[in-house]
Parts: sequence; C-alpha cells; structure tokens
Amino acid sequence: MQRVVDLRSDTVTRPSTGMRRAMAEAEVGDDVFGEDPTVRELEEYVAELLEKPAALYAPSGTMTNQISLNLGCGRGEEAILHEEAHVFNYEAGAPAMLSGVQVRPVAGERGRVSPEALRRAVRPENVHFAPARLLCLENTHNACGGLVYPVVPFAATAAEARDLGLRVHLDGARLFNAAVATGEPASAWCRHADTVSVCSSKGLGAPVGSLIAGSREDIERARHVRKAFGGGMRQAGVIAAASLYAFRNNIERLAEDHERARRLAEGLADAGYAVEPPETNIVLVASESPDALLRDLADRGVLATPGRSGYVRLCTHLDIDDRDIEYAVRVAAEVRTENPARRVAGSVAEKVAGRP
Amino acid sequence: MQRVVDLRSDTVTRPSTGMRRAMAEAEVGDDVFGEDPTVRELEEYVAELLEKPAALYAPSGTMTNQISLNLGCGRGEEAILHEEAHVFNYEAGAPAMLSGVQVRPVAGERGRVSPEALRRAVRPENVHFAPARLLCLENTHNACGGLVYPVVPFAATAAEARDLGLRVHLDGARLFNAAVATGEPASAWCRHADTVSVCSSKGLGAPVGSLIAGSREDIERARHVRKAFGGGMRQAGVIAAASLYAFRNNIERLAEDHERARRLAEGLADAGYAVEPPETNIVLVASESPDALLRDLADRGVLATPGRSGYVRLCTHLDIDDRDIEYAVRVAAEVRTENPARRVAGSVAEKVAGRP
Amino acid sequence: MQRVVDLRSDTVTRPSTGMRRAMAEAEVGDDVFGEDPTVRELEEYVAELLEKPAALYAPSGTMTNQISLNLGCGRGEEAILHEEAHVFNYEAGAPAMLSGVQVRPVAGERGRVSPEALRRAVRPENVHFAPARLLCLENTHNACGGLVYPVVPFAATAAEARDLGLRVHLDGARLFNAAVATGEPASAWCRHADTVSVCSSKGLGAPVGSLIAGSREDIERARHVRKAFGGGMRQAGVIAAASLYAFRNNIERLAEDHERARRLAEGLADAGYAVEPPETNIVLVASESPDALLRDLADRGVLATPGRSGYVRLCTHLDIDDRDIEYAVRVAAEVRTENPARRVAGSVAEKVAGRP
Amino acid sequence: MQRVVDLRSDTVTRPSTGMRRAMAEAEVGDDVFGEDPTVRELEEYVAELLEKPAALYAPSGTMTNQISLNLGCGRGEEAILHEEAHVFNYEAGAPAMLSGVQVRPVAGERGRVSPEALRRAVRPENVHFAPARLLCLENTHNACGGLVYPVVPFAATAAEARDLGLRVHLDGARLFNAAVATGEPASAWCRHADTVSVCSSKGLGAPVGSLIAGSREDIERARHVRKAFGGGMRQAGVIAAASLYAFRNNIERLAEDHERARRLAEGLADAGYAVEPPETNIVLVASESPDALLRDLADRGVLATPGRSGYVRLCTHLDIDDRDIEYAVRVAAEVRTENPARRVAGSVAEKVAGRP
Repeated sequence: MQRVVDLRSDTVTRPSTGMRRAMAEAEVGDDVFGEDPTVRELEEYVAELLEKPAALYAPSGTMTNQISLNLGCGRGEEAILHEEAHVFNYEAGAPAMLSGVQVRPVAGERGRVSPEALRRAVRPENVHFAPARLLCLENTHNACGGLVYPVVPFAATAAEARDLGLRVHLDGARLFNAAVATGEPASAWCRHADTVSVCSSKGLGAPVGSLIAGSREDIERARHVRKAFGGGMRQAGVIAAASLYAFRNNIERLAEDHERARRLAEGLADAGYAVEPPETNIVLVASESPDALLRDLADRGVLATPGRSGYVRLCTHLDIDDRDIEYAVRVAAEVRTENPARRVAGSVAEKVAGRP
Repeated sequence: MQRVVDLRSDTVTRPSTGMRRAMAEAEVGDDVFGEDPTVRELEEYVAELLEKPAALYAPSGTMTNQISLNLGCGRGEEAILHEEAHVFNYEAGAPAMLSGVQVRPVAGERGRVSPEALRRAVRPENVHFAPARLLCLENTHNACGGLVYPVVPFAATAAEARDLGLRVHLDGARLFNAAVATGEPASAWCRHADTVSVCSSKGLGAPVGSLIAGSREDIERARHVRKAFGGGMRQAGVIAAASLYAFRNNIERLAEDHERARRLAEGLADAGYAVEPPETNIVLVASESPDALLRDLADRGVLATPGRSGYVRLCTHLDIDDRDIEYAVRVAAEVRTENPARRVAGSVAEKVAGRP
Repeated sequence: MQRVVDLRSDTVTRPSTGMRRAMAEAEVGDDVFGEDPTVRELEEYVAELLEKPAALYAPSGTMTNQISLNLGCGRGEEAILHEEAHVFNYEAGAPAMLSGVQVRPVAGERGRVSPEALRRAVRPENVHFAPARLLCLENTHNACGGLVYPVVPFAATAAEARDLGLRVHLDGARLFNAAVATGEPASAWCRHADTVSVCSSKGLGAPVGSLIAGSREDIERARHVRKAFGGGMRQAGVIAAASLYAFRNNIERLAEDHERARRLAEGLADAGYAVEPPETNIVLVASESPDALLRDLADRGVLATPGRSGYVRLCTHLDIDDRDIEYAVRVAAEVRTENPARRVAGSVAEKVAGRP
Repeated sequence: MQRVVDLRSDTVTRPSTGMRRAMAEAEVGDDVFGEDPTVRELEEYVAELLEKPAALYAPSGTMTNQISLNLGCGRGEEAILHEEAHVFNYEAGAPAMLSGVQVRPVAGERGRVSPEALRRAVRPENVHFAPARLLCLENTHNACGGLVYPVVPFAATAAEARDLGLRVHLDGARLFNAAVATGEPASAWCRHADTVSVCSSKGLGAPVGSLIAGSREDIERARHVRKAFGGGMRQAGVIAAASLYAFRNNIERLAEDHERARRLAEGLADAGYAVEPPETNIVLVASESPDALLRDLADRGVLATPGRSGYVRLCTHLDIDDRDIEYAVRVAAEVRTENPARRVAGSVAEKVAGRP
C-alpha cells in the first residue's frame, strides 16, 4: 500500500492513545445545566492559560469567532479585519448571516493591520456609514502561511483600536504556535484583546473543540449566543477531556512541528521550489498551476491543499514525523524533475525573498 | 450521602461502559473533509433508519432544527408551528436571529396542529404578509408532556401543508419514544416530512449529537448551513461513535422508560397529585406553586424541572431504575403529606381527566 | 357611471386642495443633511403634540414601527405583542427579517394585552429563552375593528412592562382616532411609551408619511436605522408639508368619521347584519362568506376589505360624506334582501352582543 | 448676505416651478393597492427608458440597491463589488443588516471591476466559502469622481459574471450622467444587468425617489421586499409626479452640468489645484488637509464635501449656473493664494496625470 503523508492541515490529526484514555475516563454531566465537571475544568484551565476571567467551550473555531463577532458588533455595524482573515474568507459568510455584521477588509503585510490602516478604515460618525465597533486580528495568520503577529505591532494596533472606541477580538486558532515560536506566553497577546478564541483541534491534536475567553460578562452573553447558534451540548465532557488533554500536553511540542516545517521548506527550496520561509507549521509553495502540483503530489501520496491564490499549502502536525518529511521532500523533488516548467510561478517566485 | 434521583430531563444520562468503549475505539478522520468513517457510518445508519436518502450529524438538536428552518424558509418568510413548540420556545430566538424567519404559533390540543388550524394560519399572497413556507411538527411533544403525535393526524396535517405549498419539518428529538410507544416505525412519520431532526442525546443516552435527515439536495445545503452555524467538527467520530451506539442499542429499551413513567404517574396520583397520564417518558404534575414543589422535592434529592405554566415535569431515562421510581414516589408522598394545600392546582387538577 | 364608495381603508384618501397648496409652497432642503426646514418643522410639531423630546419622519408606518423594534430589541430578543397586532401580521415578517427579532403574540380581549398576560409571556433568564425586551401595544387597534385602548388599562400594562424591564412601543398609526374618540390628548398614552409611531396617511389624509417619536438619543439612533432601511429622503419637505397640514388641520375632524361609522353600523344592523359596535372609524360586519359579500358590495360600487377571519371591514375617512354612507347602507340592504342566508355568520352573529 | 454656492451634491437641488406644478396636479390613488396612476405611469416610463419589462418606485436609492441585493443573494451569500462602491460604503451596512449578505470588495482602476478580478474573487464551491451570487457595478462611479464605466468593459465584466453563474446589478444612481456623457442610451448598460436602480433625486432634480427595474418576476418579488423594508407608500403619486417630470425633462440637460464641471476643474487647475479631470458632474480636488480646505471654502460660501481619502469633492447640478462656477473658482483661487502650502497633497497631486 502506498505511503500517505497528509499535510493538508493540522486539523487531520487523530486522537492519541493518551487522549482517548482521557476521553474514556472523563467525568461528565449535563453542560447545558452547567454541570459537566470536565467542561468546567477545561474552561477554567484555558481561562487561566490566557489570563482571562472566564472561557466557554464550543464545537468549533468558527463558532467561537462568530460568537465574538456577535458580542462585539450589533446589526449593521462593522468589524475591521485583514483581507485574508479566516473570519471573512473561510467562515461561510457567517458574520452577515448570523449577526448582520459587515466586515471591512483592509490590506496589510504579513496578515497584519497597521494602526494607520485601521485608522483609515474607521470612518467618522455619519448616517451613511456602518459604525466600526470591532477589530479582529489573527495570530498566527493562516492564509498568510502561519505567520506570527509579533506582540509589539499587535499591541500597537490594538491600542489604536481602543483609541478609536473599538473592541478587539483575537482569532487565536493557532495562537499557541505563535507563543511557542516566539517564547512569549499566549497571554502576551490576550491582554490586548477583549475576546480570544483558541482551538484544541488544530496543532494541539484534539478531535473537536474551541474556546472563547473574555470578561465574565462577555462569557455570560456568549453562553446565550452559543445556545442560539446550536452549540449547547450535553455531556460534552467526553470530548472536552480530549481538549483538556491537548492543552495540558501538546503545546510545547508544537516546536517539533515548526522544526519539521522548516526542514520541509528547506528541502523543497533545495529541490527548486519557491518557498515562503515558514515561521510556524505552515509552508507555502508558489506555483503557477497549484491544482496540477497538488494532483501530482497526491498521486504519490503527499496530500496538501491550495493556499491563497498561486500557492500550495503544506502543514505539519502531531501525526507527521521526520520520515514523513523526508518522504514528502523526495516526492516533491521527483515531481519537479519530471515537469519543472509549470511548478514554480515565475512572477510569484521572484517576489519570494532570499530563495533560489 | 443523600440519594439523588435526577428526573429533570432525559438529557442528563451519562454514557454507559459499552458506549464509552465504542468511543474509545472509534475510527476517525477529518469530517470537514468528509473523511470520518464513523460519522459517515452514523449518517448512513440514521438515514436508513428514517428511510430518508441522506442525513447529517450536528452538535445539537437546536442546530438540526435551525438548519431545517433555514432550508425551509427564506428571510421574512414564515414557519407555522404549535404554540408550545420547542423551536419557538426553547431555541433562544434562533429562527429570527439566524435565518430572519418569523414563526407563527397556533393553538392546538395535545401539541398538535389541526389541518383546519394550519389552513387558517396560512394567509393568501399579499404584500403585507410574510409568506408561509414551512410547517414544523414535534413528536413526541416535549412541552405538552411527551405526548405522541399519532401517524394519522400527523399525516393529515402534513398533507394539508403540502396542499398549501408548504414544506414540512419534523422535530423528532424524541421521535423514537413515539415509535416505541406506538409500535410504528419512525419512518411512518418521516415519510410525511421533508426534513427530520432526531437526537441521540435524549432518551437514547448518547452524550452529544443530533442528525438532520432529508433529500440529498437538502442535506448538501444543510452541510453548508452547518458550517456557517459553527457546527463543522473535525474528528467527530469520537462522539459520533456514541450516537451510533445509541441508535443501535438503545431504541427498544425506551419501553422501559415509558413503563417507569407510567408507574411514577400512578404512584403520584395515588399520593393525591393531579397527574397528566403519560404516554412516553415525561410526567406532568399540576401544581399551584411549582417552584415550591420543586424545592421540596429537591431538598429530598428528587430533581425535576418546571413544565409548562402550572406544572412540574419529571422525566424517566436510561439512568433511572425501578428503585429510583419508588424513591421518587415515596418522597413526593411525604412532601404532600406535610403540606397538602399548595401541592395541587385546584382548577388545573380538575381539568386532568380520569384522575382522582 | 356607477357611484363608487371606497370604504376599504382610510389610507385611500386623496390630498385636498389646501394640502396640495401646502405641498406646492413648501420650503425644502436636503433632509439627509438635516436641512429641510419643512421636515424639521413637522418633526418638531409632532414631537410637541406627543410631548416627546424628538421625532423623525419616515415614508411609512411599517418603517417607523420597524425602527422602533430595532431600537427596542437586539438580534434574538423578543417583542411581546397582541396576536392581532399590525407589527406581527401586516408588516411582511419585517421584525425577523430586518432585525432578527422574535415576536411573541399573546391573546387578549379587544386587542389588549393584560398585565397578567404580559407577565406570563415574559420568561425568566435562561439560556433557552429569547429574552423579552419590548412590549408593543396598538391604539386604536386596527384588526380588532378600530377599538380604543383606554388610558387606564394601557398604563397598567405599560407599568407592568417597565417592572419587567421591558421597553414600550406604541403603534399609534391611528392614535388620534383614539384621542378624538375619548377626549384624551394623544400624550396621555405616549407618556407610557418609550417610542411612538403615528401616521399622517390614514385618517389624517396626507398622501404619505409617518413619524417615530421618543427620546433624543432614540431618535438619533432611529436616524441611523432609517438610513439603513432606505428611508432617508432628500427634499422630503414636499411631502412633509402635506403631513404637517394634516396634523394641523385634520385631527379634530376625525370625529366626523367616527359619527359616520356609527351611522353606517346602525344602518347595517337595521338591515339585518351582525355588526360589531364601532368605537372609531372602522366597522366590522360578521359574515359566513366574506369574499362573497365583498364581491356583491363591489358589484354595486361599495368597496370594503376582508377584516380578521369571518369579517368584512368598512372604514370611514376624509373622502366619505353622509351621502356615501346612505348609499352604502342602501346597497348593503339590497344585497342582503337578495340572498339573506349567507350574509350573516350564524355562530359569529350570536357572539355579537346587543345587536338584533 | 453672502452668496452661497452649494456644490456638496447633486442631491441638494430644489424642485423647479414646473416640477412643483406637476406635483400639485398629479392624479393619485393608493399605491399599496396598486392604484396610483402617476406611480404606474412613472414605473412604465422608466421601464421603457431602460428597456426592462418592469420597474418599481421606492423612496431612496439605498432602498432600490438593497432590494436588488436581497433579490440577488440569500443569507450568507456574497455580492462582489468595487471597494469604493456606494452599496458597500454609504448604505449604513445594509447588505449584512437587512439581507445577511456578505460583500466582497475588489480593487480596480476607475471604479471598475475587471473580468480577471471578478474571476479571482469568485471562489469554488466549498463549505467554507460564502457562495458568490451577485456582481454589483456602479455607473457613473460616485466615490471615484463621477467616472463613466464605458459599455465595452462593463459588458465584458457582466459577461464574465454570467459565465460564473452570477447575477448582475447596476447601481445606476447617476446612470443618465454616463449616458449623456457618452451619447449611449441608458439601455446600453441595462441590457447587461438583471436589475438596475436609477435615481430621480440626483442630477435629475426631483426631491425624492428611485426606481428598480428588471424582469416582471423580479419586480414582483421587489414589491414584497419593499413592503418589508417600509418603502410601501400610499398616494405616492404626489412625489412620483416630480420624478416623472425629472425623467421627462431633465436628462438631456445633464450635459450642462458636465460642461460646468469641466470649467470648474479647469479653473481650479489654473489656480494651482491638483484636480482629477472630470468626466461628468463631479470634480475631485486632491488636498493634504481636505477638512481645512472645506472650511476655508465654506467660510466664503462655497460648500463642498470630503471625497474619498485625500480629496475634496465638488458636484455641479441643476441649481448651479455659470456665475456660481465663476464664483467658486474665484473663491478657491483666493483660498489658495492665502495658504498655498497645505492646499495640494504632494504625493497625491503627483499621481494626478497631466496637471501641474
């Protein structure tokens, strides 16, 4: 049977034996009545980790992000975010659909929104304008290739937001990747945000689950919104146990994913690909015909996904080991040897600094 | 330690050893990529059980109901339902909030909507009126005391709906209670509905999870709506395994819950309470001061909830055995002996047929 | 040519010569810039008339009602109103569609919501419940036959609402009919409501236009919502002039409409119809086959509309004089003579007190 | 008294004597019953003018645009438009608020969306993506300075939209400016759009009113949406008469506004301002401190508004004559003489081709 190296996403990990055991042994109750001890333990654990007063468990990162939008904006109000933001591009139009919220995307290097760009995007009070109420920042930035949003520029833009009367939401689906990559605690970013969402189902390896953290009042309101969104679950402890296990055991080891992403990027660059230097666990490879490259890799068992326009995206995670990386590099090199012309996007490749 | 008999809801059950084992051993994959074999097995199993072409798994019954509303009605259109419907009263205003749908509640005996009542509620085409597009029926009917909606009147109203150009959704959170109580297969109702939602987390004893079933086209659209609602989950197989176990093993045994509910009702009636004769696993006790009665029972370890106005509700389930029923009856009798006056609602009690 | 007596609605009036002159001479400006002097004069005039700090002009009563709902309720929150309310039944599902607001209709005699009914409808804080935030009352009550909501019960229910933490909106599309019928000033009701909408285009005879009145802060927010709803107009003074003329000249004369409605009802009763005694300008006639009766009347030039189920509705107004009433009575008598059987709803007729 | 030259917008015009007379003499009826002859005449006139099967009158351009969005997109679906589009930037967040529609702004020269940009913006079918359903184009383009969208590129992008399965809406608030400037009939653009909105209250000089044109089926649905949005009006003929007058009498004379805008731009350029060459009736002047420039002009009676970032906008219209233009140029020259430094935006000015 052909070897399969699944680099499509860090969401594909399967629960480990230890995590399965934690689930099997989880003490549970009815969480809609607030009585599931494992869910409560998870919520308290994450709140403490992020240094926020409270947290709430929900079935997905889309739901925690959308709850935050609902808390931050009324109908017909505006959330400002980066044009490549997950909230805008990968959540099925939920801001408008669920909350009547208009998003205003702004351009910015490396997935960032500069204080100046933010100020320009927030318009004065005027009956023609949807009032801006919320800034959403994303860290690490998924579509931009897992880039870290360093604390200093993050804090600067958040300060500008506050100055402009906006709340701040941090889409931290991969916040712990940023923390591990920089050595900063996750709370270094959280203190500049009113609400934060974090996922246990990406690099941390849990099968399901996301949390939103914030003030007690916000989390109380979030509980109500979660119910309306259909995110109230009963003996959720059986899955919350996996998330708790993930937060307790799998944060530090993200460093291994980052190291493997670095090696993968080097190997691909050596094979002649134009690769964006990875900062965490996501590798973007420029390609003139991403679909063809994806197909050729998949034919040999290496699975990846389209990145943003003109790129193929590969993602390391808990279920990828060193031999998988070696295999992926070897396969990619073969693919390139066979048909070098169409592999690398000409104009795109030139834009990728410091790579052959 | 005081004995606790938790009759608040059939949602409070904890997963059994067999169910936990099924979860621990579940084969999983990334369901957002459609690759979780356990989720697919569950969806196929339930689709077949309900004799519908397809089904979709979601974290809650609120979500599957609300997806059905979204499929059935556009913005500013109307869903017609019974005035005690769960969709209207217990789903946090989601029809308006998530889908811009107006609900039009109609009165009816025993949680039913008669064909005549439906016809009256559907108004002619006119620019002033929100066009009615969907009829929602509920079986068994939760707020009305777990009453069965028999197939014949159900089919008659559904036929009227079709005649009026409406789709039909069946909120079947407790559909299998109705099936077991009557000996009819669940599909006997489903064939009269376009979409059906069923829960694994109520009498069937799974910790989490609900499914919506319908045509392939509807389920494809439902998948999209589920993503926007934040119900897309990754290795959902770890919990879907529990639901699959529940559908496979726990349907027939609902008869035991019904038998215990019957015995509970008899015991309470013998103790002087005005009790509505239960048809499935829910017992409604009329009371002039439901809150006081609930408190008195809780003080002795018997937990129940307020039913609809003027009633206390008790619910049997998988984790309630014969001794629990005996204990609950004994406690209730004691409570009544101590303070008989306020226990039974005068005018209400008289309306309860065939009870002393 | 056949005489036509148009009793379908008080909305059918055509602007009088004086009103047309006021329009032709109106001083105007760009109201989106807040510079139309006639609009401002109208807004100030109506605010003063209702004894509210501010008012805002909009193109329709539906818009002013829906702005009030938007001010009073957030997404997924609840507005409580009478089951025959215009806001619920005749505004095209706008509460859910435009504002994500769930309406909770309650039954009540004569279009009223009793304090007890209100208290029952407002449920405790619970994650399952859409929080009730707004009570809407209607005076006079259109669908119930132009009935006056007297100040005393109105104030009692409004006080209960406040006690329960709800805001109060008064749908006063025909508030001046109530004022003239009772001799109370309109402000007698307005002082119990946070927001009030009044129409110039019904009994008052203006071609277009409605106003919402309330606190300065509410009206400032209303201005923003009106823009989003598409109700911002430019040189609106050309039509506001007609509204201003209507408020200045046509309130007192509503008494004539009421007197004619009384004579119309008497005439119809004498002819053998079961008529609800009118309190203002609307006459409801019970009929077993309203559509047939409407057709027969229309064949002879008397136009009316279906009332609520089982009724035909006739409405007096500015363009109806004494001879029109005589003609309508004569025609209705002829119709009845020809086919007496189907004219009067048996069971309905008996319910109509004090009529032969 | 100081002379005032109001160049803020072509919305500030006051109805002329002829137009007032048309209003005073308008035959009217109840348009909610479809009986206002003047409204019907207007709707038919505009439908014919645009060569569309039907049209509908509404109180504002925001409402006709938002009705078109509602017709073109369901909840959670996407409308693609230029990043400077009126629908996105000046309609108070209505797409999300009223219809749950997400807008996806794309960049483009001169207010245009190229076929390539459109293709990039439309993403494949995927559960993560809000499906794109509608392309909105604007002609002339307000925020870009009244630029004409020529027929050829307009048709090319519309064809691409159709190819991608999208509907096309044309925001033609100033479509007749484009028609007059190019000599093309308005229908030259309309034939490439499913729905078109046009305003009578901008250059055409009516006080109020906009129309949406499209297929009979769309206009039937539009009538329903208009009611929910609060745009149903009664004897709307009194204002529709002004719109009809405007369409009949004021289209050709837009050429005068364009000629005056050209002269204004030349005068300002001669005075040393960096001016974008106008194509219709809007003149954009680059400025480092637009607010200061606006104040200085206003102090001397010349009123203008901020354009897009870094610009002051001046707009010619029906109530501006040659002497107003001379006066405005003279005033602007004086202002510049007094404080030349801050008047012209350095970097911006350089980008303006062919200007000193």
